[in-house]
Amino acid sequence: MDPFGILYTDLYQLTMGQVYFRMGLHEREALFETFYRRNPDYGAHQAGYTVFAGLDPLLSWMEEARFGEAELNALRALKSRSGRPLFSEDYLAYLKAMGGFSGLTVRAHLEGRVAHPQVPLISVEGPLLQAQLLETALLNRINYETLVATKASRVREAAGEAVVLEFGLRRAPGKGGESATRASLIGGADRSSAVSLSHLLGLPSSGTHAHSLVQAFLALGHSEEEAFQAFAEVFPDDTILLLDTVDTLHSGLPHAIKVFEALRKKGHRPVGVRIDSGDLAYLAIQVARELDKAGFPEALIVLSGDLDELVIWQIKSQILEEAPRYGVEPEALLKRLVFGVGTRMVVSWGYPALGGVYKLVAIRENGAWAPAIKISDSLEKILNPGHKRVYRVYDERGLATADLLALAEEEVREDRPLTLRHPTDPTKRRVLSPGAFTLEPLLVEVFRGGKRLFPPLSIKELRARRDRDVARLDPGVRRLVNPHIYHVSLTERLFALKEELVRKLDR
Amino acid sequence: MDPFGILYTDLYQLTMGQVYFRMGLHEREALFETFYRRNPDYGAHQAGYTVFAGLDPLLSWMEEARFGEAELNALRALKSRSGRPLFSEDYLAYLKAMGGFSGLTVRAHLEGRVAHPQVPLISVEGPLLQAQLLETALLNRINYETLVATKASRVREAAGEAVVLEFGLRRAPGKGGESATRASLIGGADRSSAVSLSHLLGLPSSGTHAHSLVQAFLALGHSEEEAFQAFAEVFPDDTILLLDTVDTLHSGLPHAIKVFEALRKKGHRPVGVRIDSGDLAYLAIQVARELDKAGFPEALIVLSGDLDELVIWQIKSQILEEAPRYGVEPEALLKRLVFGVGTRMVVSWGYPALGGVYKLVAIRENGAWAPAIKISDSLEKILNPGHKRVYRVYDERGLATADLLALAEEEVREDRPLTLRHPTDPTKRRVLSPGAFTLEPLLVEVFRGGKRLFPPLSIKELRARRDRDVARLDPGVRRLVNPHIYHVSLTERLFALKEELVRKLDR
Repeated sequence: MDPFGILYTDLYQLTMGQVYFRMGLHEREALFETFYRRNPDYGAHQAGYTVFAGLDPLLSWMEEARFGEAELNALRALKSRSGRPLFSEDYLAYLKAMGGFSGLTVRAHLEGRVAHPQVPLISVEGPLLQAQLLETALLNRINYETLVATKASRVREAAGEAVVLEFGLRRAPGKGGESATRASLIGGADRSSAVSLSHLLGLPSSGTHAHSLVQAFLALGHSEEEAFQAFAEVFPDDTILLLDTVDTLHSGLPHAIKVFEALRKKGHRPVGVRIDSGDLAYLAIQVARELDKAGFPEALIVLSGDLDELVIWQIKSQILEEAPRYGVEPEALLKRLVFGVGTRMVVSWGYPALGGVYKLVAIRENGAWAPAIKISDSLEKILNPGHKRVYRVYDERGLATADLLALAEEEVREDRPLTLRHPTDPTKRRVLSPGAFTLEPLLVEVFRGGKRLFPPLSIKELRARRDRDVARLDPGVRRLVNPHIYHVSLTERLFALKEELVRKLDR
Repeated sequence: MDPFGILYTDLYQLTMGQVYFRMGLHEREALFETFYRRNPDYGAHQAGYTVFAGLDPLLSWMEEARFGEAELNALRALKSRSGRPLFSEDYLAYLKAMGGFSGLTVRAHLEGRVAHPQVPLISVEGPLLQAQLLETALLNRINYETLVATKASRVREAAGEAVVLEFGLRRAPGKGGESATRASLIGGADRSSAVSLSHLLGLPSSGTHAHSLVQAFLALGHSEEEAFQAFAEVFPDDTILLLDTVDTLHSGLPHAIKVFEALRKKGHRPVGVRIDSGDLAYLAIQVARELDKAGFPEALIVLSGDLDELVIWQIKSQILEEAPRYGVEPEALLKRLVFGVGTRMVVSWGYPALGGVYKLVAIRENGAWAPAIKISDSLEKILNPGHKRVYRVYDERGLATADLLALAEEEVREDRPLTLRHPTDPTKRRVLSPGAFTLEPLLVEVFRGGKRLFPPLSIKELRARRDRDVARLDPGVRRLVNPHIYHVSLTERLFALKEELVRKLDR
């Protein structure tokens, strides 16, 4: 049995399914929505937005996943505490005939788009049983890829124009490395070191060499310089040398420069150096100075070692401040930097799980959608009920100013005043005048009849989508630390429906 | 091409490989070791040990991974900056003929064993190229599974005798959920909700129901009680009811009790209830009191919702303190608790990546092992060089008192005084007298000639191994907060070798 097939799910989806089946509710039309409640908060700093990722792999999975004999036999093996089978044969026969998710219609943010808390990222409409069964696999993909794409987007913001390489496979979570690399590349990394994953995503992989190359030569009685020479001989046009196996400034750098000079004599252009430990900003300045002196002002300086958005920011700030003291032009140095980012990007260090949820919001009763709600003890956790549409509201500057949740059946127009209600605080509202805003619907139908409706985009196209959306955020929302809160609002009608449902239930 | 095949690796392993190949070093015998530098530190609390996991999947992968045509074609597609192919055809032909990892001998801690910082967990001996190529996949598996098994072990310690269910698939990192579930079950979880993964591991999956079941019934004009009745009708011997969709104490609990009473009349035994939000300790006490009154003193109370080892500890402490105030016997209540732990276990919340590394420590030269070392700016990061053995040292109580690193060629005996040297501080040493200690070698040969040497153990056996090792730790090392530092020591000879190598290089 494929571990990642249709049973890559929680048992309760299947037990609830049998309850729905027995009660005749399994084909009742239902509507579930996926959203997350809070932006990632990394402890010392927090995100002002997320980058939505994971959709395409999810849709591919939905096209393929189905109940075959192996899956049914796995379910047959599960026993009730009574000793009898947990699942009945008529239910299993129904699952087999049903196959997979052909009854579902999925509407979603397009992958790579900027997203915000409380806003439905995906809505799933279709037979209650199928929609319920989808929950676990959907959240598994979307939560993690969105989390990593968001961290990568922040790394991208910190790095500015510099190249960012994703180096994280060795610290990525097992086969989850597949998602980690993909999401890093969507969020903002330029290349990854992962060979098979990059290849399957249509990108070349990137890399330098490890300390072990130098160590092996040293242990065999050769020198660091000979290790560098060997690398340069084999890769004369792709030479990036790692400087910190022995001592960055007193051993690695002079040896690298000698090897670069030899390469130049033979008509090759050395690519650069890498520094993996120590005071990276200080070392980068010293290395740049010596490379400049030796006539290699274009050699790249790759920095790596537990980098994240704050560390990159700190390195760049320190360079701006200190480089002139050593006669190095800071802007020129920043332009030749490359950031190799691994662990902290692929595990979203500081906030390693996005709490995305998948909630029933409506169910079809006598041809109409009956809104579903869950009352819980915190106001923040109360669902926005019913069948909804989502709009992004742009201001006169063309910047996104709010995401607006509306009921599906109401008309939201650009030529009338638009009232934005706070999702929980009844005293907070904002009215926008016609002409002062434009509206963009965010949820696009992407899956129906068992098939996705668009071919998958390339990573490059997804990253371009992310870039466009980030550029349309207010700079305050893009800030790495202490960002502005982006508004997520309800229409008057949705706010009223929510109030009414809470009143009804909360007797 | 299989994304998780032999190219589930970093590009630089393959470029270094080509350098070794060109220099005639590719079949030189080398020795690499895997270790991590620090125990997980979750911010407010830290681990005193780890639980080693991920070995069996790694060995299975090593048996299978090889260079086929698809892999070679992916490598052929990579270009040098010169525009020519990055890899030469003779190198690719060599890789194809080599196949995979048949030249390597792997020695390792047995999976499920307690492990400590700086101690070699795995040593890999064999041709330099093969040993180098293994790095990324090895670290990818071992880092993540050890991290999660360690967190699960802490959850197990906090939960005591209570059942722990792993509920984390929806927050697990994509296909890394496979590793998350496996490692959680090795570290201490009793069952998982993940259906396919549990099945493939030979365990039944576990679960209850979600809020959506109650929401669906409510939206259709039925009551919470009717939702519970439906579940009980379909699963009369497996009824666990989720209480907090509307209001735990005023709605969920009385409805559940009515349904339980009806089940009892029909001769069935209700299994229990689940609470997923609110003040879990307070609610558990109130729920226990009402269940007792209604004659269901054995009904389980499953608690869930962002649990980890500290939250479980807090819940249990609060119950011990507050339950008597409500006439509930705290010990009896603790015995009926079940903890559903998801997100925080599978992402190791607070410390989401173990920094395990894979370092060249020796290379064969003229028939002898030449030790390799890497000098870096922090003393803590300096490698323990050479071909080594690892012993666990037990005291007279049979408790583990230190892990000892020795040179492979030296004799470490129980019948002579044994000197333990601090790995970096030359002033710290400890001498153990014969009779006061016993020694256990930790590294076992597990892979040779392309095959693993032992069949995989069941999860149950791995968990038993973890239990035995944890029981042999000093209680101070097991502490969830502020644990004792477990000693990792060097023999006199290894300490001397390290000093000598550092002196030689650090001119």
